[in-house]
Amino acid sequence: MFTKQSRHRQLSPLTVIAGSFLLLIIIGTFLLKLPIATEVPISWVDALFVATSGTTVTGLSVFDPGSTLTLFGEIVLLVLIQCGGLGLMIFAVALLALLRRKIGLKNRIYVQESLGQSTAGGMVKLVIWVLIFVFAFEGAAVILLSLHWIPEYGWNKGFYYSVFHAISAFNNAGFSLFPDNLVQFAGDPVVNIILSMMFIIGGLGFVVVMEIFQKKTFREWSLHTKMMVVGTIILNIVATITLFILEYNNPDTIGNFSIYDKVLASYFQGVTPRTAGFNTIATGEMEDSSLLFTMILMFIGGGTASTASGIKLTTFIVIVLASISFVKGIQEPHLFGRSIRTEVLIRSLAITTVSMFIIFFFIFLLTLTEDIAVLPLAFEVVSSFGTVGLSTGITADLSSIGKVIICIVMFIGRIGPLTLFFLFLKQKRETFKFPYDQVHTG
Amino acid sequence: MFTKQSRHRQLSPLTVIAGSFLLLIIIGTFLLKLPIATEVPISWVDALFVATSGTTVTGLSVFDPGSTLTLFGEIVLLVLIQCGGLGLMIFAVALLALLRRKIGLKNRIYVQESLGQSTAGGMVKLVIWVLIFVFAFEGAAVILLSLHWIPEYGWNKGFYYSVFHAISAFNNAGFSLFPDNLVQFAGDPVVNIILSMMFIIGGLGFVVVMEIFQKKTFREWSLHTKMMVVGTIILNIVATITLFILEYNNPDTIGNFSIYDKVLASYFQGVTPRTAGFNTIATGEMEDSSLLFTMILMFIGGGTASTASGIKLTTFIVIVLASISFVKGIQEPHLFGRSIRTEVLIRSLAITTVSMFIIFFFIFLLTLTEDIAVLPLAFEVVSSFGTVGLSTGITADLSSIGKVIICIVMFIGRIGPLTLFFLFLKQKRETFKFPYDQVHTG
Ligand SMILES: [K+]
Ligand SMILES: [K+]
Repeated sequence: MFTKQSRHRQLSPLTVIAGSFLLLIIIGTFLLKLPIATEVPISWVDALFVATSGTTVTGLSVFDPGSTLTLFGEIVLLVLIQCGGLGLMIFAVALLALLRRKIGLKNRIYVQESLGQSTAGGMVKLVIWVLIFVFAFEGAAVILLSLHWIPEYGWNKGFYYSVFHAISAFNNAGFSLFPDNLVQFAGDPVVNIILSMMFIIGGLGFVVVMEIFQKKTFREWSLHTKMMVVGTIILNIVATITLFILEYNNPDTIGNFSIYDKVLASYFQGVTPRTAGFNTIATGEMEDSSLLFTMILMFIGGGTASTASGIKLTTFIVIVLASISFVKGIQEPHLFGRSIRTEVLIRSLAITTVSMFIIFFFIFLLTLTEDIAVLPLAFEVVSSFGTVGLSTGITADLSSIGKVIICIVMFIGRIGPLTLFFLFLKQKRETFKFPYDQVHTG
Repeated sequence: MFTKQSRHRQLSPLTVIAGSFLLLIIIGTFLLKLPIATEVPISWVDALFVATSGTTVTGLSVFDPGSTLTLFGEIVLLVLIQCGGLGLMIFAVALLALLRRKIGLKNRIYVQESLGQSTAGGMVKLVIWVLIFVFAFEGAAVILLSLHWIPEYGWNKGFYYSVFHAISAFNNAGFSLFPDNLVQFAGDPVVNIILSMMFIIGGLGFVVVMEIFQKKTFREWSLHTKMMVVGTIILNIVATITLFILEYNNPDTIGNFSIYDKVLASYFQGVTPRTAGFNTIATGEMEDSSLLFTMILMFIGGGTASTASGIKLTTFIVIVLASISFVKGIQEPHLFGRSIRTEVLIRSLAITTVSMFIIFFFIFLLTLTEDIAVLPLAFEVVSSFGTVGLSTGITADLSSIGKVIICIVMFIGRIGPLTLFFLFLKQKRETFKFPYDQVHTG
C-alpha cells in the first residue's frame, strides 16, 4: 500500500505515534512536577520516570504513588495510563470521530497500525467499538470493585479506589494506590479475580475480544483469535502450576499460606507478568528460578494492539510452532488447519531476536551505571521492556542515569514492536537484486 | 537431495555424528576414570565432565588438569580434543581416505555437512587438505612454542607443553597444563600471539582458510570468506577496545598493568571468548559489564565447520545486516554486492532464537539445582553452549546434577547448530498446503 509513496510519507505514522507518546510524557512530567501534584517535592527525573511509566502503562515507580501523589497527581497519572493504554492514535481518532470530523486516509492508516487490522474499511466504526468495549469493561470492573470496597473504605474512597484500579488493570498499568501494591489482597478472591480478568481481557487485544463477541463458535474465529485464546489459557495454567511448585516452600512468599491461598497467589503471580504488573506477593523475595521464569513471561507479553507489550503471545507461538515444524522437516508451520506465512515467521523471529539484543544491551548499560547485582537489573530491564512493572525492589535505588535508561527501555518496549511491525509491512522488494552467494550459518 | 528418501535415512548422518561424539565421551570417561589416569581418584561425574569438555573442545574443568591428570590422563584428554575438534566425521572419513577405501555417497554427505561445503565432489581431496592444514598449523605452533618454552622448561617438558598447548589452541579447546591457565603469561607477547593466532585460524573454519590460500585477492573470495575475515577483524578490534575501557581501572585484572600489558591482556581476553577459552586474567574478577560483554562474544562464537561453536559469526552478521535492511525497508540484506537468501536469514534468526531459549532454559534448571548467584551460572551456561571454557570459577563447586547439566549443554552446543543446519537443509515443502490466515505478531 505504501510502496509507491515517498519515504517521508512512509515514516510519518510511526513518527506520529512516537511523537504523541513523547508529547504525552513531557506534559505528564511537567504536571507531576507541579507542587500541587505531590505531597513532598520530587525531582525532575522522578517526575519523568512516573510520567513515562504511566504513559507506557508500565507501572514501575520510584516512589509509592498512593502516599506521594496528591489527588491531582493521581488523576494526572490515571489520565496518562488511560491515554497510553488505549493508544494515542485510537484516542486521537476517537476524538475526531466523536467530533464527527471526516477521517482522512492518513489517519485511517495509523489506526489500522494500532489495531493490527488488515483492512482499511470500517475504521471509525471499529474505534467506536473499541471505546464501547473499553468503557463497558472498565465500568463493569468499577461496579464489581465498588461492591467489594465501598463497604470496607466508605463511599468516596471505595468508589475512587475502584475507578483507579479498574483503569489501571484494564490498561495493564499495574499501578496501585496501596503501598504494598496488592500484597494485602493475596487471599482475597474478589480482588484477584476481578483485576486479573480485567488485565487478561485488556491484554488479549480489542480485535480478539470483538471477534469473540461477534462470532460465537470457536470454528468461526480467525487463526489469530484462536491462537490468542488457547495460548492465553495454556500459558496461564502452565505459569500458575510452575510458580506454585517453585514457591511452594518459600516462607517469604507463599510458603506459610494455606493451600487455597497458595493456589490463588500462584495464579495471580502467573498471570500478572504478561503484562499487568500488579503483585500479591513480594517479587524481590521470590526464588531466582521464579524470577527467571517470570522474565520469560514478561518477555512474551500479551496480544498485538492490546494494552499489553512484550514480543506478543502470537509471536512466541509462531516461534514454538516453527521450531516443531523444522524438527519435523516441514517448511511452513501450521495450526488449526491454517498455514503461517514465511513473512510472519521472519517477522516473529526478527522481533524476538532484536528484542533480546535490545534487552541485553540495556542490561549491559545498567551494569556500567549501577552498583546493583545483574539479576535484579536484568529483571528490571525485562519488566520495563514488556511494560510490566514488576520489580525486585531496586527502582527507587537506581541512579538518575539508571532511571533515564529505564525510561528509554519503557518507551522502546511500548513503541518498538509496533514500529518493527510497521517496518515489515512497508517493506518492498528492491527492483535491482544482487546475485546470491552461499553463506554458511550455525 | 534427501527429499525422496525415507525419514530413517534422512536422520542417519545426524545420528552418526551425535552417536560418535557420545561414544568418544563414554570411552574418554572410562579411560579418565582408570587409576593410571589421575594422581588422586576422581568421581565418575568428574571423569564424564572432563571427557565431555575435551571431546566438545570446551575446556571447562572440575579439577586442575595439569596437577590432577597423569601423563596418560593428559594424553587421553589431548586425543579427545584432537578428535572432537577436527570433528569425528572428518576424522572417520580421513581414516577411510588414508586406507584408500572408496567413500560411499552416505559418507560423502556427512563430510559435506561437517565442512559446510555445498558440492559433494572433491570430498576426499578436501579431507586430505583439512588434515594437511591442521597438522601444518599445529606443527608450526609446536615449533614456535618450543623455541620459547624449551629454553625455559628444558627439552622434555618444553616440547610436551608446546604440543599440548598447540593442539589445545588450534582446536579451540582452551585446556592448559598451567594451574592458572595462562594468567602467568599475561605480559608474554610470544605466547599470547602464537596461541591466539592458532585459535583464530582454527575458529575461522577450514573452508575459509583454504579459500584464503587458494584465492589470493579479496575480490575472488566467496561472500562467506569475506564475511568471516572482515567480521573476525572488526569484532576482535571492538572486543579489545571494549574490554580495555571496561577493565582499565579494575585492580583485580589489568588495573595495575603497564599500558602495554593492558593492551595485550585486553586483546587476549577480547579474542578468546569466541571460542578458545584460554584466559590471561582471572575471569571471576572481571567487572559485571565485562562478563556480560564476554557472554555476547561467547554466544556469537566462530566459523561454521571450524573448531569453534556458538551461533557462528556469519549467523550474527546476517542478523545485523537484516536488522539494518529492515529499518531501510529493503527485503533482502546484501553485503559486498551479494544478496543473502531468505532461507539463510530464517535459518540465522531461528538458530539465534532457539539458542537463546535453550540457554535460558538451562540457566533456569541450574538455579533449581545450584545455590549460586544467577550471573556466574548464566556465564557458565553460555560458556558451555559456545564450548568456550571460560568460567568465573564455579565449575568445581557445581553439584553432580549441575555438572551433568553442563555436560548436556556442552554436547548441545557442539552438535546443536550443526543439527539445526542439517534440519534446515533437508526441509521440503509439503505438497498439501493449508490456507493462510492473518496472524498479528509484535
Ligand atoms: K504494566
Ligand atoms: K574452548
